Amino acid sequence: MGINGVEGDKTLQSICYKRGSLRLLDQRKLPLETTYLDIKDTKDGWEAIKEMVVRGAPAIAIAAALSLAAEVSNLASFNGTSDDAATFLRKKLDYLVSSRPTAVNLSDAAVKLNEVIDKAAAEAKEVKSVFQAYIEATEAMLEDDVMSNKAIGSYGANFLQKHLTDNQKITILTHCNTGRRLSSLVFNGFASMAIGFLCKSNREEAERNCDKALHAQGALERAYCTETRPFNQGSRLTAFELVHENIPATLIADSAAAALMNAGRVKSVIVGADRVTANGDTANKIGTYSLAVSAKHHGIPFYVAAPLTSIDLSLSTGQQIEIEERSPKELLHTRGGLGEQVAASGISVWNPAFDVTPANLISGIITDKGVITKNGADTFDIAEFVRKTSGDL
Amino acid sequence: MGINGVEGDKTLQSICYKRGSLRLLDQRKLPLETTYLDIKDTKDGWEAIKEMVVRGAPAIAIAAALSLAAEVSNLASFNGTSDDAATFLRKKLDYLVSSRPTAVNLSDAAVKLNEVIDKAAAEAKEVKSVFQAYIEATEAMLEDDVMSNKAIGSYGANFLQKHLTDNQKITILTHCNTGRRLSSLVFNGFASMAIGFLCKSNREEAERNCDKALHAQGALERAYCTETRPFNQGSRLTAFELVHENIPATLIADSAAAALMNAGRVKSVIVGADRVTANGDTANKIGTYSLAVSAKHHGIPFYVAAPLTSIDLSLSTGQQIEIEERSPKELLHTRGGLGEQVAASGISVWNPAFDVTPANLISGIITDKGVITKNGADTFDIAEFVRKTSGDL
Repeated sequence: MGINGVEGDKTLQSICYKRGSLRLLDQRKLPLETTYLDIKDTKDGWEAIKEMVVRGAPAIAIAAALSLAAEVSNLASFNGTSDDAATFLRKKLDYLVSSRPTAVNLSDAAVKLNEVIDKAAAEAKEVKSVFQAYIEATEAMLEDDVMSNKAIGSYGANFLQKHLTDNQKITILTHCNTGRRLSSLVFNGFASMAIGFLCKSNREEAERNCDKALHAQGALERAYCTETRPFNQGSRLTAFELVHENIPATLIADSAAAALMNAGRVKSVIVGADRVTANGDTANKIGTYSLAVSAKHHGIPFYVAAPLTSIDLSLSTGQQIEIEERSPKELLHTRGGLGEQVAASGISVWNPAFDVTPANLISGIITDKGVITKNGADTFDIAEFVRKTSGDL
Repeated sequence: MGINGVEGDKTLQSICYKRGSLRLLDQRKLPLETTYLDIKDTKDGWEAIKEMVVRGAPAIAIAAALSLAAEVSNLASFNGTSDDAATFLRKKLDYLVSSRPTAVNLSDAAVKLNEVIDKAAAEAKEVKSVFQAYIEATEAMLEDDVMSNKAIGSYGANFLQKHLTDNQKITILTHCNTGRRLSSLVFNGFASMAIGFLCKSNREEAERNCDKALHAQGALERAYCTETRPFNQGSRLTAFELVHENIPATLIADSAAAALMNAGRVKSVIVGADRVTANGDTANKIGTYSLAVSAKHHGIPFYVAAPLTSIDLSLSTGQQIEIEERSPKELLHTRGGLGEQVAASGISVWNPAFDVTPANLISGIITDKGVITKNGADTFDIAEFVRKTSGDL
């Protein structure tokens, strides 16, 4: 198969797929339980998305698409023409999109998959060919996603390693959770378990292809993750992944990051991104900006790790990004608003979902096409980087 | 009486005392319940301290001393000499100290009160005089504490107000909770409820004596308090006090402080102190240093508010302060370690109780004897300030 997520793989997959079989890690139960749900068809997929089994817009799109792939793979028979098969698939996709109508990635994926379906129906006489084209397109989506994350991990690890002096080991501080193990992917670029993770599942092939990752093996001394209030994505998800991957890892309160830096225990900060604007300003989970300010104060490099698809060249600066404010309940109650009340009644709350870190506090942007660094004028030329690397696409 | 804490007072008192009666605010139940416990004698006092009804080392010392004052005030009779009375008091004090043997303030207070007892027993023939001397000494302790906090509030409010330009209102960000409403005292220097609070309970007297506080009335636009992970003293206690005092107040996640500053919503940061060293380095709740770094980055003044008794001239710099590390459980479970597990099992934790903010990030130290500012060399001369103001004692 070549597609990640094979059962028995030591790494923790939020999406475990092989043709005809889809299992989703139930993220509602993390970190206390690791439970996978069997997703046999689009009805299961729809419910898993609705009930927040999967989180993160890109993962939702892939899980939805694969649930339909699993359904058609296991169809005993289909009565109808190839056009009927195309109609069947389109209706199922519409149904899946209705599980989370505001998720842009999900509707974007449906548009692309509908194009694949239309093309296949126009070209093929056989129902089987239409289904086959759909299944292959969804598997390519999953593989692209896996490869994109791998590329970020690989570019990041190699870039950071270049900055190590002899015998120096790196310590990384990260914030929040990127939803699909981006941070642990980056960490794995340094950790001894890198082989099985950064590369495809075949270990021999891994050892042949992953010279760079191997080179970096053992270079990671420790990863620090913040709790990431108020929703604790750091202590619940990132910490869980790091423990699972056997990466030496330590959890800190968000407010302890500056003291950790001052103690000389952080050599590099790496965060994800919700969106990066044309000048490099980066919107990410609330608290990212605070880490960037502290990193600057302590002379510690601060990196953003994100796929090129997170860069929005239509926005020139971060000032054009609207900050979403979330429910006060996330701060007033435990478990991000779902648990018991802890804060004083009647207090007003300012609870922005994210903040914007200006490009002047960012040392580099680690993408799936390479690391964007600053030019002589201490600015990023992201449009030029995108233009140059688009030939690779 | 002239002593604060009279019932019916609108302000929230952790210690409500009038001669013969002591009531302690049960801080274990805050912020969800406001319950006072009647402390009739040293046995009640011992249990209240043991069971964490009172928190904060100075408050524990005062509560213990007053529990014995309440007991002797209500003694129907005492058989014995004035020496017997002194022995009785000393034994009771020993017993109270055993409730929290590591609390330095409590044993310090016992030493001072024993001196008072010895002196009274030596001078007086009557049992009543010994008891009276003890009671008056404890009431003086309470009054000194109240006056010290009032002075900090008054000096702080006046100092900050001097830096306001015309029609400018101040917004303050604070961190943690000082245990006896220091932050709300400082805020009250600016707020419209200042009269009843910064001054003694008699409102007419208040209006005569509190010109300075009145002058500052209404100058506070808003107080921001951090959640203060992992024990949430900010969202539980400071937020509770601010709501109780009708001060316009907003709770934020610790990690949102830098974004709040960047949005121009903070004009001043004021924090408490566990200890201030001779050069002005300040140990305070973890996260204080992060706020100081952010304040520096945004050009916002950063003040420490603490009584002169928190200054330790025997330590030359903050590097001599040992950082206490607390239980990982505080980060792994809700409610500072007492509630349900939220973080991933197996993750290691770095949980320092406080951090040290270097003097170069501190704009001034607001004490009960005035505000210590920097000299031309951008350093504090705290020993000189202490020497100069010791004449006021």
